[in-house]
Amino acid sequence: MIGRLNHVAIAVPDLEAASAQYRTMLGADVGPPQDEPDHGVTVVFITLPNTKIELLYPLGAGSPIHGFLAKNPAGGIHHICYEVDDLLAARDHLLAEGARVLGDGAPKIGAHGKPVLFLHPKDFNGCLIELEQV
Amino acid sequence: MIGRLNHVAIAVPDLEAASAQYRTMLGADVGPPQDEPDHGVTVVFITLPNTKIELLYPLGAGSPIHGFLAKNPAGGIHHICYEVDDLLAARDHLLAEGARVLGDGAPKIGAHGKPVLFLHPKDFNGCLIELEQV
Repeated sequence: MIGRLNHVAIAVPDLEAASAQYRTMLGADVGPPQDEPDHGVTVVFITLPNTKIELLYPLGAGSPIHGFLAKNPAGGIHHICYEVDDLLAARDHLLAEGARVLGDGAPKIGAHGKPVLFLHPKDFNGCLIELEQV
Repeated sequence: MIGRLNHVAIAVPDLEAASAQYRTMLGADVGPPQDEPDHGVTVVFITLPNTKIELLYPLGAGSPIHGFLAKNPAGGIHHICYEVDDLLAARDHLLAEGARVLGDGAPKIGAHGKPVLFLHPKDFNGCLIELEQV
């Protein structure tokens, strides 16, 4: 069912410093910051040859990243995203297998403009998993 | 400098359950458990089209995974691994830029039989980064 690893998302306490670090210390291809007001994040995309790293920084008072950074002041890996061909079929299969989907179970449009769902980290080894339809 | 994302390593409290979950719930290509006594882990490799997930479970009393699971009983993402062409050049560049390499700074042979180094998570947004020479 799951296909490619679309990205690893890392919440960071200082987006400029983290971008500079990936660019200069790690020599990666680091894009400009992009505000995603619908998701409460500013994102920097780091393009690797086979996948992406996304640096996440809170945007706005209601950002879901505030709580994560309060618990992890140095930052940390926030979620991983797997691609699926058919998000509704994936959701129904997971629900039938007893997994929990966050929210009301209806796909949202994610930061890449594609439908996404998140799975409960307690059901998946403490990892927040995003599924993105590609 | 960094190339492909070689793998994402997830520490899990129950290797059999996590393997079954990735195989059945997520429909992934999940390998058999492999003991790596030199690294104090039993590993299950999950092959995605573009990278790997590695499930890590403690092997032996001195395993580095015991402490992680004590802090994260449900499990969690333990580290991410980036490939580099020249590990010693990468290390020297990172040290010159002020990053800290774990241990004595000498590469070890990693779980894939290739030279690896780990970077201090406090220097990299709370993420433990492994560099593997490919």
